[in-house]
Amino acid sequence: MENFNFYSPTFFAFGKGREADCGTLVRRFGGSKVLIHYGGGSVVRSGLLDRVKESLNEAQLPFVELGGVQPNPRSGLVYEGIDLCKKEKVDFILAVGGGSTIDSSKAIAAGVVYEGDFWDFYQGKWIEEALPVGTVLTIAAAGSEGSPDSVITNEDGMIKRGASGDAIRPKFSVLNPELTETLPAYQTACGITDIIAHLYERYLTNTKDVEVTDRLIESLILTMKTEAPKVMNNLEDYEARANIMWAGMVAHNNIVGVGRSQDWTSHQIEHELSALYDCAHGAGLAVTMPAVFIYNLKHDVMRFAQIAVRVWGCQMDFANPENTAREGIKALQDFLISIGMPKNFEELGAKEEDIEQLAYTCCYGKGNEGGTIGGFVPLIQKDVEAIYRLML
Amino acid sequence: MENFNFYSPTFFAFGKGREADCGTLVRRFGGSKVLIHYGGGSVVRSGLLDRVKESLNEAQLPFVELGGVQPNPRSGLVYEGIDLCKKEKVDFILAVGGGSTIDSSKAIAAGVVYEGDFWDFYQGKWIEEALPVGTVLTIAAAGSEGSPDSVITNEDGMIKRGASGDAIRPKFSVLNPELTETLPAYQTACGITDIIAHLYERYLTNTKDVEVTDRLIESLILTMKTEAPKVMNNLEDYEARANIMWAGMVAHNNIVGVGRSQDWTSHQIEHELSALYDCAHGAGLAVTMPAVFIYNLKHDVMRFAQIAVRVWGCQMDFANPENTAREGIKALQDFLISIGMPKNFEELGAKEEDIEQLAYTCCYGKGNEGGTIGGFVPLIQKDVEAIYRLML
Repeated sequence: MENFNFYSPTFFAFGKGREADCGTLVRRFGGSKVLIHYGGGSVVRSGLLDRVKESLNEAQLPFVELGGVQPNPRSGLVYEGIDLCKKEKVDFILAVGGGSTIDSSKAIAAGVVYEGDFWDFYQGKWIEEALPVGTVLTIAAAGSEGSPDSVITNEDGMIKRGASGDAIRPKFSVLNPELTETLPAYQTACGITDIIAHLYERYLTNTKDVEVTDRLIESLILTMKTEAPKVMNNLEDYEARANIMWAGMVAHNNIVGVGRSQDWTSHQIEHELSALYDCAHGAGLAVTMPAVFIYNLKHDVMRFAQIAVRVWGCQMDFANPENTAREGIKALQDFLISIGMPKNFEELGAKEEDIEQLAYTCCYGKGNEGGTIGGFVPLIQKDVEAIYRLML
Repeated sequence: MENFNFYSPTFFAFGKGREADCGTLVRRFGGSKVLIHYGGGSVVRSGLLDRVKESLNEAQLPFVELGGVQPNPRSGLVYEGIDLCKKEKVDFILAVGGGSTIDSSKAIAAGVVYEGDFWDFYQGKWIEEALPVGTVLTIAAAGSEGSPDSVITNEDGMIKRGASGDAIRPKFSVLNPELTETLPAYQTACGITDIIAHLYERYLTNTKDVEVTDRLIESLILTMKTEAPKVMNNLEDYEARANIMWAGMVAHNNIVGVGRSQDWTSHQIEHELSALYDCAHGAGLAVTMPAVFIYNLKHDVMRFAQIAVRVWGCQMDFANPENTAREGIKALQDFLISIGMPKNFEELGAKEEDIEQLAYTCCYGKGNEGGTIGGFVPLIQKDVEAIYRLML
C-alpha cells in the first residue's frame, strides 16, 4: 500500500426530510448570506426549492438565487455566479441538485476568492481556498457531495476538465433518498453507472497488496448489483434508493481508493464524448468501460478475473483465467444494458468519423504534451482511437 | 435504512514515517502547547517518542509529557492529566500509543474544559467541548483514532464505561503500519479480534434493507480473514499490517454502521471481564462473541447464515439454515483460536463463581434501572448469566 492522506470532513445529514436542516447547517458552518444554485425546473416543480428557502428563512439567512445549471455544467454560468456572489457579498454557496449543480457551485466558490480566471483551476492549479459549499443532493451519481473535485465544460471549444482541492469539499451534504424518487429511469441508470465507474476506476490499480480497498470496492459494486434492479423495477423504492445514495458517496469520497494507484481512463475517454455530443456522462461511461477494459485486459488478467469471480459471480476458469476475466466484463456490460444503458456509439449518438479528433483531444487537449492518459495502462492516441473503435 | 448523521472530520496521515508530520499537523489544527500522552516503555524504547518530540521541536511547539497509561486505562491518570494540562496551559493533546492511550487522552481533553468531574461523561453526559486531540497510533485495534468514543475504567469499583461526542474525534491521526510491527503476536491478535468485534456489533441489526452497510462490513471481515494469517505468520509483514490498520479505522469511524440499529452486546458483556480480571479486551471478546451469537442465534437465523456464507465461505443449507448459521459462528471461533485467542473462561483467567456478580454489574452497574442490555436482542441478567455460562 502506498502512503496517503485521507480527509473527508463533510457533515452528512442523511434521510427523509433532512433538507429541513439546511438553515441550521449553513449557520453551523459559518454562512451568513447564501447563494442558492440550482438547475432546471424539477427542483422548483417538486417544491424542494421552496422547502430549502423556508429552512433558510427560519434560520434568518438572506439569500440570492441562480438557476440554470445544465448537465455537463458550463463555464458561462460559473462566471455569472462569481459576479453575483461578489456583488451580493455572498459567503456561502448552497447547491440544490445533482453533480452538475454541485460542481458548478464548487467552481463559483473557488472563483469568488481568486483574483485570476477560475478556469486556471481546471487547467491544473490546485484549489487552496474557496467559499464554503453545502449541498442538497437530488441524484445519486457523481459523488460530488463528498468529493474534493469539480468538472466543468468550457464553452470556448467545449472542453470538459476537472479541478480539485480540499477547499471545495462540501461542508455539509443533505442526502435525502426521497428526493431521488422522482428521477426518471434513464437518469437513475446513468447515475448507477457513474457510481460503478468510480469504483472500477479505483479498482484498476498497479499497487500490490491492497486487499482492504479491493474488498471495500467490491462490496459497493455488489450493492449496486443488488439494489439497481430493485430501483429500476420500482423508481419509488426508498430503501433501494437509500442504499444506492450512500454507496455513491462512499464510492467517491475516496475512503475505498486510498493508498493505491487509480486508473480514470474510462472517465478521460468518456469526457470527450459528453463534451462533444452532450450525452449523459453515465451513458457515455456504459459504452466506454467495457471497451477500455477489453483493451487493457492483458495488462492484468488476474485482476479482471478477481472482480469477475468476487462481484459478478463467475466461476474461475483455472486453466484459462482470461476466459473468466472476459466473462466478468461481459457480465458488467450485460448488467448495464439490463438497466437501460446504451451499448455502442450508435445508441449514444456518437459518430465514427469523429474518432480521430476525439482521441486527439483526449490525449493532447489539456496541454498534455506527452499525449499519454491512463493510470492503469499508459495509453497514447492510437490506443484511444482503438478503444473508441471497440465501441462501434 | 434509518435517518442518520455521519461526520468524520479526522485528517489521516497514513504510511511509513508519517510521525515526522506530527508537528506540522498540531500547528495545522491549532495547537500551540502540547501534552504528549503515552503508555509504557515500548514507545520510548522504539525511539518513537523521540521522533515525535523532534517533530514538535521542528515546529517550535513546546510540550509536556505524561506517560504511564495502562491497558484498560484508569481514571486516576486522567485526573492527573487534567491537572497537568491546566497547570501548564496545554491546548493540544497528542496521544502516542494504542486505543488505551487515545481514550485516556480524549478523557483528559474533555475534562480540562469541563468544570465538573470528567467521570460525568462516562455516566451518560454527551461531550460537547474538548481540547483538540491528535494521535500517533501504535496498535490497530480499538478504532479510537477515528471515533468519537472513549472507554475508561474507574478505579473506584473497577467500573469500565464509555463516553462519546464529536468533540473528542481526533483532529488528525498518524497511521504508520511500521509502528505496529514490533507488537507481539498476542497483542496483534487481540487487536484483530477487537476490529472483527466492531464489525459484528454493527452487523447484528434489526434494521431491514441495509445492503450497502452489510456488504461493507462483510468486506472488512473478509479482509481480516485474509490478512490476519499473513501477519501472524510474519509480524513484520508491512503490507498485511497496513491493510489491517486501515480496516481497523474504517470499521469503527462508523461509515459502515450508519442508518442501522447496532448491537454492542459482546462489548458490554466483555467489559465486565476486562474490568474485573484485567485481561486484554480482544481476548475477552474472542471468548464472548461466540457465546453471545449462539445465545442470540434464533433471533435472526438468516442474518447469521448470510455472514456464514458471504464471509466464512460456508455452503448454504437451504433445508436447515440454522446449520449454516451455527457453522459460521464455529468458523469465527476457529479463526480466532487459530490466531492464538482464548476460547473459554479458564483460558481467559475468569472464574465461574463470579458469573452472577458479572451479570449483575453488566445489567445494573451503570445506573441502568431497567437492567436490560443489547441492541440486537434485549437481554436481562439471567440471559447474561447464561451467556457467561456458555463460555465455561
